[in-house]
Amino acid sequence: MDYAELDLGRTARRGYPEAVYCAGKTARQVGGIAARVRARPDVITLFTRADAEHAAAVLAELPDARHDADAGLLAWPATPPAPTGGLVVVVAAGTSDLRAAREAELTARYLGRPTELVVDVGVAGLHRILARLELLRRARVVVVAAGMDGALPSVVAGLISVPVVGLPTSVGYGAAFGGLAPLLAMLNACAPGVAVVNIDNGYGAGHLAAQIAAPFEPGGPSGPGGPA
Amino acid sequence: MDYAELDLGRTARRGYPEAVYCAGKTARQVGGIAARVRARPDVITLFTRADAEHAAAVLAELPDARHDADAGLLAWPATPPAPTGGLVVVVAAGTSDLRAAREAELTARYLGRPTELVVDVGVAGLHRILARLELLRRARVVVVAAGMDGALPSVVAGLISVPVVGLPTSVGYGAAFGGLAPLLAMLNACAPGVAVVNIDNGYGAGHLAAQIAAPFEPGGPSGPGGPA
Amino acid sequence: MDYAELDLGRTARRGYPEAVYCAGKTARQVGGIAARVRARPDVITLFTRADAEHAAAVLAELPDARHDADAGLLAWPATPPAPTGGLVVVVAAGTSDLRAAREAELTARYLGRPTELVVDVGVAGLHRILARLELLRRARVVVVAAGMDGALPSVVAGLISVPVVGLPTSVGYGAAFGGLAPLLAMLNACAPGVAVVNIDNGYGAGHLAAQIAAPFEPGGPSGPGGPA
Amino acid sequence: MDYAELDLGRTARRGYPEAVYCAGKTARQVGGIAARVRARPDVITLFTRADAEHAAAVLAELPDARHDADAGLLAWPATPPAPTGGLVVVVAAGTSDLRAAREAELTARYLGRPTELVVDVGVAGLHRILARLELLRRARVVVVAAGMDGALPSVVAGLISVPVVGLPTSVGYGAAFGGLAPLLAMLNACAPGVAVVNIDNGYGAGHLAAQIAAPFEPGGPSGPGGPA
Amino acid sequence: MDYAELDLGRTARRGYPEAVYCAGKTARQVGGIAARVRARPDVITLFTRADAEHAAAVLAELPDARHDADAGLLAWPATPPAPTGGLVVVVAAGTSDLRAAREAELTARYLGRPTELVVDVGVAGLHRILARLELLRRARVVVVAAGMDGALPSVVAGLISVPVVGLPTSVGYGAAFGGLAPLLAMLNACAPGVAVVNIDNGYGAGHLAAQIAAPFEPGGPSGPGGPA
Amino acid sequence: MDYAELDLGRTARRGYPEAVYCAGKTARQVGGIAARVRARPDVITLFTRADAEHAAAVLAELPDARHDADAGLLAWPATPPAPTGGLVVVVAAGTSDLRAAREAELTARYLGRPTELVVDVGVAGLHRILARLELLRRARVVVVAAGMDGALPSVVAGLISVPVVGLPTSVGYGAAFGGLAPLLAMLNACAPGVAVVNIDNGYGAGHLAAQIAAPFEPGGPSGPGGPA
Amino acid sequence: MDYAELDLGRTARRGYPEAVYCAGKTARQVGGIAARVRARPDVITLFTRADAEHAAAVLAELPDARHDADAGLLAWPATPPAPTGGLVVVVAAGTSDLRAAREAELTARYLGRPTELVVDVGVAGLHRILARLELLRRARVVVVAAGMDGALPSVVAGLISVPVVGLPTSVGYGAAFGGLAPLLAMLNACAPGVAVVNIDNGYGAGHLAAQIAAPFEPGGPSGPGGPA
Amino acid sequence: MDYAELDLGRTARRGYPEAVYCAGKTARQVGGIAARVRARPDVITLFTRADAEHAAAVLAELPDARHDADAGLLAWPATPPAPTGGLVVVVAAGTSDLRAAREAELTARYLGRPTELVVDVGVAGLHRILARLELLRRARVVVVAAGMDGALPSVVAGLISVPVVGLPTSVGYGAAFGGLAPLLAMLNACAPGVAVVNIDNGYGAGHLAAQIAAPFEPGGPSGPGGPA
Repeated sequence: MDYAELDLGRTARRGYPEAVYCAGKTARQVGGIAARVRARPDVITLFTRADAEHAAAVLAELPDARHDADAGLLAWPATPPAPTGGLVVVVAAGTSDLRAAREAELTARYLGRPTELVVDVGVAGLHRILARLELLRRARVVVVAAGMDGALPSVVAGLISVPVVGLPTSVGYGAAFGGLAPLLAMLNACAPGVAVVNIDNGYGAGHLAAQIAAPFEPGGPSGPGGPA
Repeated sequence: MDYAELDLGRTARRGYPEAVYCAGKTARQVGGIAARVRARPDVITLFTRADAEHAAAVLAELPDARHDADAGLLAWPATPPAPTGGLVVVVAAGTSDLRAAREAELTARYLGRPTELVVDVGVAGLHRILARLELLRRARVVVVAAGMDGALPSVVAGLISVPVVGLPTSVGYGAAFGGLAPLLAMLNACAPGVAVVNIDNGYGAGHLAAQIAAPFEPGGPSGPGGPA
Repeated sequence: MDYAELDLGRTARRGYPEAVYCAGKTARQVGGIAARVRARPDVITLFTRADAEHAAAVLAELPDARHDADAGLLAWPATPPAPTGGLVVVVAAGTSDLRAAREAELTARYLGRPTELVVDVGVAGLHRILARLELLRRARVVVVAAGMDGALPSVVAGLISVPVVGLPTSVGYGAAFGGLAPLLAMLNACAPGVAVVNIDNGYGAGHLAAQIAAPFEPGGPSGPGGPA
Repeated sequence: MDYAELDLGRTARRGYPEAVYCAGKTARQVGGIAARVRARPDVITLFTRADAEHAAAVLAELPDARHDADAGLLAWPATPPAPTGGLVVVVAAGTSDLRAAREAELTARYLGRPTELVVDVGVAGLHRILARLELLRRARVVVVAAGMDGALPSVVAGLISVPVVGLPTSVGYGAAFGGLAPLLAMLNACAPGVAVVNIDNGYGAGHLAAQIAAPFEPGGPSGPGGPA
Repeated sequence: MDYAELDLGRTARRGYPEAVYCAGKTARQVGGIAARVRARPDVITLFTRADAEHAAAVLAELPDARHDADAGLLAWPATPPAPTGGLVVVVAAGTSDLRAAREAELTARYLGRPTELVVDVGVAGLHRILARLELLRRARVVVVAAGMDGALPSVVAGLISVPVVGLPTSVGYGAAFGGLAPLLAMLNACAPGVAVVNIDNGYGAGHLAAQIAAPFEPGGPSGPGGPA
Repeated sequence: MDYAELDLGRTARRGYPEAVYCAGKTARQVGGIAARVRARPDVITLFTRADAEHAAAVLAELPDARHDADAGLLAWPATPPAPTGGLVVVVAAGTSDLRAAREAELTARYLGRPTELVVDVGVAGLHRILARLELLRRARVVVVAAGMDGALPSVVAGLISVPVVGLPTSVGYGAAFGGLAPLLAMLNACAPGVAVVNIDNGYGAGHLAAQIAAPFEPGGPSGPGGPA
Repeated sequence: MDYAELDLGRTARRGYPEAVYCAGKTARQVGGIAARVRARPDVITLFTRADAEHAAAVLAELPDARHDADAGLLAWPATPPAPTGGLVVVVAAGTSDLRAAREAELTARYLGRPTELVVDVGVAGLHRILARLELLRRARVVVVAAGMDGALPSVVAGLISVPVVGLPTSVGYGAAFGGLAPLLAMLNACAPGVAVVNIDNGYGAGHLAAQIAAPFEPGGPSGPGGPA
Repeated sequence: MDYAELDLGRTARRGYPEAVYCAGKTARQVGGIAARVRARPDVITLFTRADAEHAAAVLAELPDARHDADAGLLAWPATPPAPTGGLVVVVAAGTSDLRAAREAELTARYLGRPTELVVDVGVAGLHRILARLELLRRARVVVVAAGMDGALPSVVAGLISVPVVGLPTSVGYGAAFGGLAPLLAMLNACAPGVAVVNIDNGYGAGHLAAQIAAPFEPGGPSGPGGPA
C-alpha cells in the first residue's frame, strides 16, 4: 500500500480544497504558502482565520483571490465549483455569530455545495426562526452557529428531519467561558440529530456539512461520481 | 437592635414555612426535628429532599403531614395557606425534571401562592410549549426546570414579559456534567429576565417564585400586609 | 398566530427599551445602529458595554443621548419613563463592583422603576450594610453586585423578605477565576430568595429587577396596564 | 400552523422510531410506557439505557420485543425496517466501547439503514483499522466509538471522504475524567469531517448517522420520498 | 545531620499526637496500627475519618480509647493534655458542618489547646453570629466550618482581629461541586486574615489552629517550652 | 451596638494599616485616595498592586512615601512600626516568586512584625532550604511563596513546628493554569499546618502571618496590649 | 507492509507481556480470556485492576497464576523473565499509594527488569527519602507514586540524574479532586526529568520504566538483543 | 551530608547545561545572568523561552552564543557536546508545533545526544508518519509534539518499542483549552509507554529524552561514564 499515493488520490478525486489555517502563522509564512499555491490553479485553496495582514500577504501573491473579510477567509481560484449535492443552510443565531457562520457557508460552497445564509434568528424571538421553516426544510443539512446559551440547534433539530451541525461560538462573556456554555448545550441537545464541532470552527462545520450533503451513490464504490 | 427578635419577627409576619433539608441527616435526626415541630402548628414546616426513611420518620411524629413522594417533600400542617399574590406556573421540560419541578410548585404553594404545573414541553417539540402560551401569560412568574441543554428558559423568557426562574436539573449524562450544562445555558440565556438558582434546587426556585409573586404595596412599608 | 406581530406587540405594550450590546461590535457598526434608532424616539434604546469609541459613535448620531461612562451605557431618548412599580435598590459590595451595579441601576430606571444605589457595603464590615437596613426594607427587589467571595447576597437575603438578584462580578484575581467564585457562592446562597444572573451582567440584573418590581394586577390578563 | 399536527406528521412520514430513555426511570414507569406502546405496532419504539430490571418490565408487556443486553436496548416491534440509504459502519476502538457502539448500530438499523460493526481497532495497533479500509470506504458515514485518548476518529477521518461521527465513551479512569478526554480530542480532531456527540450517547450517534445516510432527493421538497 | 533523629525529636518535644487517617484503610489494617500504638502510651494517637468498622477495630485493641462518632475520631490515651496557649473557637455554619467542626475542635484539644464549639450560626441569620461576639473576641484563633456559599469566614474575619481558619465543607449539592464553591469563596474572602485548608479537612484545621494558638517565647529558640 | 464605631475602634487599637488595592483602579482614582490619606499620618496606609502609573500618582500626593517597585507596594508614612511579636520568615521558592514574597514581607513588617526574606530555595535543590533550617526554626510563622508544583510548603511544614502560610503564585505556564496547580498542591499538603491564601495574594499572606505572630495575652481581653 | 505480522513480531521479540484490563469487564468475561490465554504459556499475560471476583475467575482457569492482591494483578505464567537492563526503583510516598506502586513494580518485573520497592517516604519527613539516596542512585529510572500534593517526584528528580516517572494517585479527598492535584503538581515539577503518566496508572508507569531501563545497543537496529 | 556540594557534583559530572527560563524576566535581568555566565565557559548554559529582546540582551554579553529564534533558545558556548548515548528523534505533528519540537531537539542535543527532527506528520495523513518508520525505529526515545487532538503519541507508541515523550502544545483554539485537550489525550494514550510533560514544555521534553537515551552502565555506580 502506497500511503503517499493514497493521499494524492483523495485530493484529486474530491476536488476538495486545501485549507491553510493562518492564525499563529506570520504574514510572511502565509505569503510563502500563497506563492507555492500559485502553481496549482487546479485545486482550490482556502486561507482561514486570516487577519488583515494575512490577507494582504495572500493578495500580494494571488491578486485575484476572493477575500471575505467578515469570515476571515480567502479562496483561490476565486470561483467556487458548480454546486452539486444537497442544499446547505447556515443559520447564525445573532449578528455576533456571523463570522463563524459566514466561514462555514463559504467553506461549504467552495467544497461544491449550494448554500444559503440566515442571520439573527435566536430563540429569544421564536417567530424569526419559524418564519424560515420553508427554507430549513429544503436543506440537506443545516449548520447552526450560536453562542451564549447555544439553544438554537435543539430548536432547529426539533423542526426538521435532516442533521444539524451545531457550531458553538465564543460570543458572550462571564459564564459563557469562551464558548464552553454553548458547546455543552449542543452536546446535550434534547433533540437527536445534532453534530457538534469545535468552538468557532466555522471551517470544520462547513466541511462537515459539505460532506453530509455530498452526492452519493448508495452502496456504490467510492470512485468517480461519489463523494470520495 | 435585637437580632434574635428580628428573626422571629420575620417568620411570624410572613408565615413563610421553615424548611428542613433532610439529605445528609439521619432518619433519627429528622424524626427528632419533627418531634419538636409538633409544638408549633402555627408555622408550616417543610421537610425537603426526604427519602423514604426520612419520610417514615417524619410521619411517625406527624402522622397527618402531607407527603409528596415525587417531590421528596413533606409539609405539616398539611393544608397550605389560602393563596394570595400572582400565579406561579412551574414548567418541567421533561418528565425527568418532574422531581425538581414538583418541589418548586409545592414550595410556592406552601408559601401562599396559587400554582400550576406543566410537564414535558421541551424545546425539541416547540408546539408543546406554544400550546400553553395562554397559561404562561397569566403567570406573575414562571419557573422552568430543565436539564440537558437547558434551552427552555430562553425560549419561555422570549414569549412572556414576567420573570422566569431557571431551575437547572442534573438530568442527563456525560457532558451534562451533573447539571453544569443547563446551568451555564441558563446563565447565558439570550433573552433577558431569567433568574437562575442552583442545580436541582426546586425548593429555592419555588421560594424565589413565591417572593416574586407576593402581594406588595408599591412604595409602602414592609409592615403587616406586605411581604415582609 | 403571527409571531412577528407578537414581538412588536410586546415591545409596544411594555415600553421596555431595546438593548444594543456594543462589546464585539465595531464603532462603525454601533454608529450605524444609532442612525437607525433615530427614527424611533417613541422607544427607548440602551447601548450597553460601550467603550469610549462606541460612545462617540452613538453620540455622533444621537447627540442628546445620555451617556454614563461608569456604567458603559448610553440611553436615547435621555429621559427615563416616569417610575412605576416597586423600588429597586442596587447594592455594590465594593467600589470595583460599581460598573456592573450602575449598569443594573440605569437599566432598571429606563425600564421604568424607581431606583436607589448603595456602594461599598461589603461583608468585611457588617455595620455598613446594617446601617442601610431601612432602605433595603423599602425595596421590592434588591440587586447585589459582588465579586471575590460573593458573600453579600446571602447576608442581604437573610435580612429582607423580597427577592435578591445576585450579580457576580469579575472583580478579583487568582482563585476568583474571572467571577466563578462569586457566581458559585451566590448559586449556593444559604438564604433562599437569591436569583443569580451571569457574571458582570448588570443589564440582565437590572432588567430582571425591573420585571420583578413591575406593577401587576394579580390574576389579571397580560393586557394594558400589566407588565406584558 | 398546527404544531401538534406537525409532530405527528414527522413521525409518521419518517417511520423513525420513538425512543424511551430508561435511565432515571423506575422499572414500573418503563413498564407503563411499554403497555401504552402496545397499541402502536405501526411505529417502532426503542427503549435505551435499559438495565436488567427495565428490560424485564418491558418484556412483561411486549414479550416479543428484541432485547440486546450488550447495548442496553429493546426494540418493538422486533423487526427493523427494510434498509434504505447508505451504509452505516460503526467502529469500536476497544471492547469496552462495545456498549455504546452496539447501541449506535442498532439505532441506525432501526431507523432504516444497513449497518456493519467493527470492534477492537484502536490506534495502538494501526494495522487493525487499516485492514478494514475496504469496508470503511463503502460507508456513507462511519461512527467511531472511543474512550481514553479518543484518537481513532482523527485517524479514520483522514482515511475516508465521508463524515465520521465521533462518539466519546467514558471508558478509562483518572485523567479520562469520565469521557472528557476523548470528547475534547474529538472536538479538536486534526482531520476535518468529525461530528461529535455526547459522551456514551450511542443512541444519538446512531440517529445522526442514520440521518446522514438517509436517502435524499437533491433539491427536492421534504415530502414523501424525502428524508422527512 | 541525622534526619530520623530530628523527626523523633520533634514528636517528643511537642507531644503533638500522631494521626492515622483511616479512610482508605481496611478495618484490619487500622486494627493492626492500633495494636502497635498500645506500646506507646506516652504519645497521643488520633484515628481520623474512622467509620463504625474502623472504630470497632481500634476499640478492640484500645478499649479505653475515646471515640467521638460525630467527628469520626478516636483518641488514645483518652485524656487530652492540660490546655495551654490561647483559646481555639470552632464555629460551624450549619448543623451539617458539625462533623468537620467537631473533628477540628477535638484535634486542637488533643494538641493541647482550650477549645469552644459554636454551632448553627450561618450568615442567613446574622444575629446568631453577632450574639457570640464576646466569645469570638476571646479567641486566639477561630476555625469556621462552612459549606454552600462559604460566606461565614469573611463575616467573622471582619469582626475580630485574630486569624480565621476557613474550613470549607462538602455540604451542599449541585453547583457546590463537592465543596469547591465554599473553597473558592474562602480563598477570595474580602476580609484579610483567612487561612484556608482543604475541603472537609477538620483535622488539618484543628492542627493549624493549635499551632497558631500555641504558647511561644518571642525570639526564643525552638527548644523546650516553645511550640517546637 | 454601634457598628461604625466598632470599625474605627479596631483600626485605632491595632494600628494595622489600611490597604488600597490599586489594580483595576485608574491612576487618577488612586491619586485621589492618596490625597485624602494625607490627612491621617497616624495610620499607615498601604497601596498594593500598584504599577508605575499608580505609584507616580501616589508619590505626587505623598512624596515621602516608601515605594517598593518589586512588590508593587507603597507605604505612607514610610517608617514601619517598631517590630513586636514573633519573627515572620518569608520564603520564595524561585526568583519569579519574589513579587508576591516581597509583598508579603513588607505587609507583615508594616503590620508591626520583624521579618526576614529568603529567596530561591526550591525543592529541586533541597540543600538550599535545608541550609536555612536555623532561620526557619526561629520563626513564629513562615510564609512560603511558590508557583509550578507548589511543593515547598509541604517540605517546610515538615521541618518546623510553627504554621506555614502557603502562598501559591501564578508563576509557570501550561498545566500550571494560572496558579491552580500550586494552589491545589498546597491545599493537599501532606504535612499538617499549612494555611493557604489566594494565588499571588502576597498582601493577604503577610497580613495573616502578622496576625499569627502578633503578641497575645493568653485568655486576656482583646483590649490594649492584645492583637485587637 | 503487513501490519498484522508487524504486531506479532513485536510481541514475540520483546517477550513483553500482554495486559488485560479487568475493570469494567465482568468476571465471566475475564475468565473467558484466561481460558484462551492457557494456550499461550510462551507469552506472559498480566491481568490488571482485578478485584476479588476477577481474580477468582482467572485462578479457576490458571490455578498456578501469581496473584498479588495488593496490586490487583495476576500474572501467568507466574515466573517473571530473568531480569535484564537497569534497576527500576519504585517509591510510594505513603502507604495508601501502595496499590499503584506495587502494580508498577510488578509490571516492570514481568517486563524483565530488576526492581526494588520503597514505601512511606513522603516529603513531610525528608529524612525518610534522604535515607534511601544510595538505592535511588543505583536506579536507571525511579517511579514515584504520590497522591495529595504530589511533591515527591520534584524532590526525587532533584536528587538523582536519571528519569523519574511521576505516578499521581487518587489518594486524598476534597481539593485533591481524584488525583488532579498531584497530576498537575507533577506536570509542573520544578526539576526537569519527570515523566508523568495517568492517575493511578501503575501498569503504565511500570511499563514505561521497563522501557527506559531496557538494554539498548546505541545506534543498532531494533532487532534481537535490542529493546524491540 | 553537604547538600551544596552534592549539587555541584551533579552538574560537574553530567556536564548537563544550566537552563535560564527567560519568560517573566526582564531583558535586563536576563542580560545580567548572561554576564555572570561568561565566567563559566566550561558549562553550557541554555536560555529558554527567549523573545527578541531577551535574545538581544544575551547576545550583547555573549556575542558568540547560538541563537535559534524558532525555538526561542540560546546556547553558550555554541558548540554542543560530542553526542553520546542513543538517538533522540523529535516529531512535530504540525508546523505550528515546531517551536516546542525544536526546543526539545536543541535541548537534547546540548545535553549530549544525537538528534533528528521530523515535521508535519499528523495522524490525519497516516502515510506521513508511516513513511518515517525506519527512522523512528532507530531511536532510543521519540519526542512527539502535538496540539489539538494530541493523537500522534498513541499512534507512534504503537509502532515502536522505545519510550515516547508526549509533548502537548497549546496549538489550537476553542475546546483545545490552551493545550488541555492534547494533554489529556496523551495521559490517556491507549498504547503504553507514553511519558507526558507539561504543555509547550519543549525544554523538559528534550531534557527527559536526553536522560532516557543517556549511556548507562547497568547496575554500575553513578560515577564517571554514567549519566549521573
